Amino acid sequence: MPSLTAEGAGTLESTVRAVVFDTFGTVVDWRGSLINSLRNFGVERQMEVPWEKLVDRWRAAYQPNLNRVRRGELEWTILDELHYAALVELLPEFGIAPLPESDLRFLTGCWERLSGWPDAIQGLSRLRRKYIIGPLSNGNVSLLVKIAKFAELPWDVIFGADLFRHYKPDPETYLGVCSLLGLQPQQVMLGAAHNYDLAAAKELGLQTAFIVRPMEYGPEQTTDLSEEQRWDVIATDLVDLAAKLGT
Amino acid sequence: MPSLTAEGAGTLESTVRAVVFDTFGTVVDWRGSLINSLRNFGVERQMEVPWEKLVDRWRAAYQPNLNRVRRGELEWTILDELHYAALVELLPEFGIAPLPESDLRFLTGCWERLSGWPDAIQGLSRLRRKYIIGPLSNGNVSLLVKIAKFAELPWDVIFGADLFRHYKPDPETYLGVCSLLGLQPQQVMLGAAHNYDLAAAKELGLQTAFIVRPMEYGPEQTTDLSEEQRWDVIATDLVDLAAKLGT
Repeated sequence: MPSLTAEGAGTLESTVRAVVFDTFGTVVDWRGSLINSLRNFGVERQMEVPWEKLVDRWRAAYQPNLNRVRRGELEWTILDELHYAALVELLPEFGIAPLPESDLRFLTGCWERLSGWPDAIQGLSRLRRKYIIGPLSNGNVSLLVKIAKFAELPWDVIFGADLFRHYKPDPETYLGVCSLLGLQPQQVMLGAAHNYDLAAAKELGLQTAFIVRPMEYGPEQTTDLSEEQRWDVIATDLVDLAAKLGT
Repeated sequence: MPSLTAEGAGTLESTVRAVVFDTFGTVVDWRGSLINSLRNFGVERQMEVPWEKLVDRWRAAYQPNLNRVRRGELEWTILDELHYAALVELLPEFGIAPLPESDLRFLTGCWERLSGWPDAIQGLSRLRRKYIIGPLSNGNVSLLVKIAKFAELPWDVIFGADLFRHYKPDPETYLGVCSLLGLQPQQVMLGAAHNYDLAAAKELGLQTAFIVRPMEYGPEQTTDLSEEQRWDVIATDLVDLAAKLGT
């Protein structure tokens, strides 16, 4: 992987004022956390379900609806509700009988109880000493606040898609953050484990940091294993990013 | 002052999920901090100016423009810019010759370097264990983030007026916070040192906590020395509020 020269790092460090992060996959291990939560639910209810597969399908299943929102075919809907709707649609595929509303809400609420990757708290705490840090996520503000409290993420500010009523990679999200921070795009860095997200940010002039998360989708992950463009920083985790940004 | 009965506190504690705070005056000592900053500026520049009076006039001077925004006579303008414009208008009154742009920006930036009241960090840290906490201020998000970092305020989330493009006491601010948190108004408490702010919040169904700040406007303060309605909680400071909310 390309590494920053000392000169390059100096320029970045003196330019960047805020680092905002994709959250699901980049900062928190949504897959591992959900599999644990759902397995526990299954044990309590004596339900035999391939929970790993259900979690993977759940993550995949909300994307079409998110894109319908992006294309304007579906009115603005927060991620919590997209998660809920995707779960309801998914149950028959796994032969699960319709669940009561309280169970559906409990299961959707598992997205609030996600653990950070092992490097998250230390890396973010170091970055926070020098930069403004926050999530820039397709999650809604209330979901991101709950995740932050659960995973003890030391954010300075919370940017959820509902602030902009747009989902990434719509430009309104990245530019909306710059505007709310009173910063130029080149003063804001996006940290993300997903090349598509960084590509959209770079197109608008933001700085980019690729955080490699080869296990986000489990041991058989095939996407986002390496950088697809020359991002400004490539980091193995958030502690590595903190070091590369001089903190 | 009326105090909460044990029964009343229990009900509040089990209902309230988030406590949001007016910031200027309630959490940070804007007046004392600004007077210090401006006095230091005056010493460096060898300018003899009654800085205390200038600070009081500055705080008063932006309110008319804020109200013009609220009435729709002035397009949406963030507080940073209202502060800047008010300062420019105020200088002749104090016989100060026009200052270069860099000085005007430096002085406006003094609003970013405000200290919390002595009880702020401890009180908020205790409240944060049980509740979602954040500012709900007429400040813009970027200003509130900078104040939080300077004063080390442990917010979970930042609500500035620019998220809603409305200033308090417009209902869009209080209800906007409830919506972004996914909470009903009765699950959200406003903490404020100003009766007018609490009155607007109560009208919309939010819970209310009056935090008495008899020195906000200096030793000769005449307003907001006591509660003008029966607020849900009356607290002498944020540590007292934390105790009264069971944290």
